[in-house]
Amino acid sequence: MLAVTILGNNSALPAFGRHPTAQVLTMKDQLMLIDCGEGTQMQLSRYKIRISKINYIFISHLHGDHYFGLIGFLTSMGLLNRKNELVIMCPPGLPEIIQLQLAAAGIALPYPIQYILLEQPGILVETRSFTIACFPVEHRISCWGCLVREKKMPRKIHREKVLLHQIPAAFYEQLQKGYDYTAANGACISNDSVTIAASPAVSYAYSSDTRFLPELAAQIQSVTLLYHESTYLHDLKDRAYDRYHSTAQQAATIATLAGVKRLLIGHFSSKYEEVAPFEQEAKQVFTRTELALEGVTYLIK
Amino acid sequence: MLAVTILGNNSALPAFGRHPTAQVLTMKDQLMLIDCGEGTQMQLSRYKIRISKINYIFISHLHGDHYFGLIGFLTSMGLLNRKNELVIMCPPGLPEIIQLQLAAAGIALPYPIQYILLEQPGILVETRSFTIACFPVEHRISCWGCLVREKKMPRKIHREKVLLHQIPAAFYEQLQKGYDYTAANGACISNDSVTIAASPAVSYAYSSDTRFLPELAAQIQSVTLLYHESTYLHDLKDRAYDRYHSTAQQAATIATLAGVKRLLIGHFSSKYEEVAPFEQEAKQVFTRTELALEGVTYLIK
Repeated sequence: MLAVTILGNNSALPAFGRHPTAQVLTMKDQLMLIDCGEGTQMQLSRYKIRISKINYIFISHLHGDHYFGLIGFLTSMGLLNRKNELVIMCPPGLPEIIQLQLAAAGIALPYPIQYILLEQPGILVETRSFTIACFPVEHRISCWGCLVREKKMPRKIHREKVLLHQIPAAFYEQLQKGYDYTAANGACISNDSVTIAASPAVSYAYSSDTRFLPELAAQIQSVTLLYHESTYLHDLKDRAYDRYHSTAQQAATIATLAGVKRLLIGHFSSKYEEVAPFEQEAKQVFTRTELALEGVTYLIK
Repeated sequence: MLAVTILGNNSALPAFGRHPTAQVLTMKDQLMLIDCGEGTQMQLSRYKIRISKINYIFISHLHGDHYFGLIGFLTSMGLLNRKNELVIMCPPGLPEIIQLQLAAAGIALPYPIQYILLEQPGILVETRSFTIACFPVEHRISCWGCLVREKKMPRKIHREKVLLHQIPAAFYEQLQKGYDYTAANGACISNDSVTIAASPAVSYAYSSDTRFLPELAAQIQSVTLLYHESTYLHDLKDRAYDRYHSTAQQAATIATLAGVKRLLIGHFSSKYEEVAPFEQEAKQVFTRTELALEGVTYLIK
């Protein structure tokens, strides 16, 4: 089960009550914070997110609207006496910034941090249920997208039916993998008569800040939900290019090229008071588009 | 004319909708930001403060709840294309933190910053109308209070009356200083018959975070408004001591010792949902006490 809760959907300058980028990804019983703009700890509190469940943080790049809230979040978790290790995936340079600020405050956090530096594409973390990977995007400074894939879950065994067919427990693991069972008397018990398929594995990709980058489509092919930035409307495509950002139409084009199931667009420029035109523009290219709205949780299924 | 607007009145952990410390001091046509906790730029926007008027920033110490919002404020002013110099009074160590974060983002601010380091007590800035000084307080790390004094304004000349008495313009400056005029015929024209007193000079002191420090009283004697932290109620005076903070009763005691005109108390611990008991406790010692409430402007007169 995956779900993403939007804590901030605006670009660099906070405006019109919109906050800078931050999201919480629910990965079964684990939470991951994806980017952490200023004010994220207040937003987490506003939306009643259980911060003690956050064991992973992904910081896409070192522009302030994506990480200035991190140091406050980390020190607050210290004040709350967190003990569990926290894994922070981030570009090189961030650990030194955090250390300098902790040293200036004379603070030692009561919990360990494991930094995983974003230096090459690939899997960063693998849990029993998920993989977390990064892929490069094209921005003014080194910047990384994030791809979370649920692992394919084994088929579930139907207890009563395996007992009825007298299938030995030693074969259960084979059943979970999808194999049929052949009994001693030669009778074939088909797998789907004694097991139930698990829900299909789902996936979430987060583009962070990027220019229109058609090559991206190959990296995020067929994901269940793609969050793609759309800082501008397409009449400002030249400005988007100059500032290493994308337009709503371009975000929708990437969704089409990648064959994703659904598209979420956000990171709206502070020049726009209304964001509805972003949805209209994107839907002309990719109908299954939604706006990333603060405080809303999008189920990924 | 002085006035202080409270943007945040809470201690380390944001709680109950209260924000970490930040204040805006209006000094005639200039604004000074005093401390800048996380989210200050959003609070400035919420309370419609004209940030382009902020030319001075005072950061009392390097605990995050007093400065984590600064880097976001500085970069936002860059995005808004500020050109005017900004004067930042701060403890040593802060310039390096700011520089490291700007470098990581690949940003050069479009305006100059002049840093004035808080290393010894005394006047930091002197303008035509005000002096800004710092004084040491007692906290876990190096920490400074801020004292702003309006300069004594010259008396105003009553145009019609000086003409009536035929006082030469060359003597006007003496009149503004309060001297009487003796005419050629020996007649004495009393100063108060031809001039009007300016409003009395006012002053504001901000204690920042401090243990109960009776020596403080001498530094802030007779100020018009004292903001003194009161993190705890007095039943937790031992905790206040251990954590280098003060209680409401102690804040009121300092106000009494210093003979200030009014007292404002804030920096409430996140353990208190209600802050009314702080006012009740302080008023038992010093009746002219008010709570520092977010979004409220306190005139200093």
